Amino acid sequence: MAIIECVPNVSEGRRRDVVEALVDAVRRTPSVRLLDYSSDASHNRSVITMAGDGAGLKDAVLALFEAALPRIDLRTHEGEHPRIGAVDVVPFIPIEGVTMADCVALAKQTATEVAQRFQVPIYLYEEAATRPSRRNLEDIRRGEFEGLAAKMADSEWTPDFGPGLPHPSAGASVVGARMPLIAYNINLATDRLDVAKKIARAIRYSSGGFRYVKAMGVSLADRGIVQVSINLTDYEKTPMFRVFEAVRQEAARYGVNVLESEIVGLVPAAALVGAAEHFLQLTSFSRDQILENKLKSEA
Amino acid sequence: MAIIECVPNVSEGRRRDVVEALVDAVRRTPSVRLLDYSSDASHNRSVITMAGDGAGLKDAVLALFEAALPRIDLRTHEGEHPRIGAVDVVPFIPIEGVTMADCVALAKQTATEVAQRFQVPIYLYEEAATRPSRRNLEDIRRGEFEGLAAKMADSEWTPDFGPGLPHPSAGASVVGARMPLIAYNINLATDRLDVAKKIARAIRYSSGGFRYVKAMGVSLADRGIVQVSINLTDYEKTPMFRVFEAVRQEAARYGVNVLESEIVGLVPAAALVGAAEHFLQLTSFSRDQILENKLKSEA
Repeated sequence: MAIIECVPNVSEGRRRDVVEALVDAVRRTPSVRLLDYSSDASHNRSVITMAGDGAGLKDAVLALFEAALPRIDLRTHEGEHPRIGAVDVVPFIPIEGVTMADCVALAKQTATEVAQRFQVPIYLYEEAATRPSRRNLEDIRRGEFEGLAAKMADSEWTPDFGPGLPHPSAGASVVGARMPLIAYNINLATDRLDVAKKIARAIRYSSGGFRYVKAMGVSLADRGIVQVSINLTDYEKTPMFRVFEAVRQEAARYGVNVLESEIVGLVPAAALVGAAEHFLQLTSFSRDQILENKLKSEA
Repeated sequence: MAIIECVPNVSEGRRRDVVEALVDAVRRTPSVRLLDYSSDASHNRSVITMAGDGAGLKDAVLALFEAALPRIDLRTHEGEHPRIGAVDVVPFIPIEGVTMADCVALAKQTATEVAQRFQVPIYLYEEAATRPSRRNLEDIRRGEFEGLAAKMADSEWTPDFGPGLPHPSAGASVVGARMPLIAYNINLATDRLDVAKKIARAIRYSSGGFRYVKAMGVSLADRGIVQVSINLTDYEKTPMFRVFEAVRQEAARYGVNVLESEIVGLVPAAALVGAAEHFLQLTSFSRDQILENKLKSEA
């Protein structure tokens, strides 16, 4: 069975009743499972995590827009986090039995229906982006809701779907497809923050490291240690084990050992299986040999 | 949802129509999935692999006995593999969402009903054994069908369920619960068979090694390399990564490298996740952080 994850970010993190109304819209959608939701009051933003098949998730996203539009007005919205829309960002993430191409198609289908039904302009981003300048969320969102009308006047920012002007109260939305993000931290048996920072620089994309790694060095002062805090944005192309080994190698160069690593939040099983395959030097191994996968495929 | 695996071994591996009749009995059982079956003509024996919940598997095993008894007569059965019954061995194996205790209870319940309905004496083995002398299948089966009547005359071998005499044509059956077995081979970058044999001796239980390891050194002559061929009978208590590291260590002592390792057949996901946790030095990691598990638990 196809399993896709969808993690909408909505521009409301303070009014409990509004957040509950949005989450209820997801809860009521058949064949979609609500996995988690959390609100940040200073960001005035909530993140909803759900999973299901493509048809179910499209319905859930439409229901979410229907619930959000009468309740969220960006003209009076304040918060620390950048945003351009009431339903700000909607990423679809392939988990199991689906390809990235499936998720891109789902993003486009969902965007089409949202634009048509709610007259909200939609930008496609990441893997669903229609041009390189729209891959990064930050670029689409620059100027925020307040600058959106001016931005859209530039033909470079004609939306992919929907009207050429912002929705009066709901702005615009960014819909797309991306790999699951793994929040992965490696703790070092030292209190030398400079070592963590140097290692972060060595492994991250922005300063010459691995393509799908964002990283920074931070101090865990209460434990007297430091951490290389990592976001892995594509664990298939830049796998966890390779990043771990690189950090271990760089740390050794300063006479420092890896103390431990930790995964924050969820991780796809495939990322861990990949690590096992690497370290055990497994050959001729097929994921169908995993008993649980075999059981699923025979279902 | 509880997932249990059941792998009956039946004393027929030559007559295709009989094997198909037995497999059909499993196929027709609701809520049980047939995963695999294979026959060995020289052993005159077939292995059927299925999965399901406890109630379904009990029904499938009863259906299997019903199909086997009129078709298999041990008085005329010949084959290289030791056996005492038409349905020779029935192990239940915990896979997901069930404990070993659940599987032991299922083994006892199934044994009770088989004995009552078919008048076949049953011995409980491995984790379901009622005394230490019955843990090992080999001990129960010693003397085979031909020696069974004499063996059962000894009160030491009174069956756990059913009549005190062998079933005339179907002998006796061995029912129990055990951990999944992992067939795991480690190939060495050398043609020195003595090294593989020495390493096998070092790691296996019978000569002082790990408790849940059976191992032997074999030559892969066509590839010009040797292999430590391993059966892991409890991957939770003797994990794959520990055995791999021990083999690597022992091999290094002879100046030999590990070339690769391979898993033959199926492996529970947990065994691979355990290897990832070890090598990545994961801390505070819960199996609930695996996205697929989270999806299942929310179902």
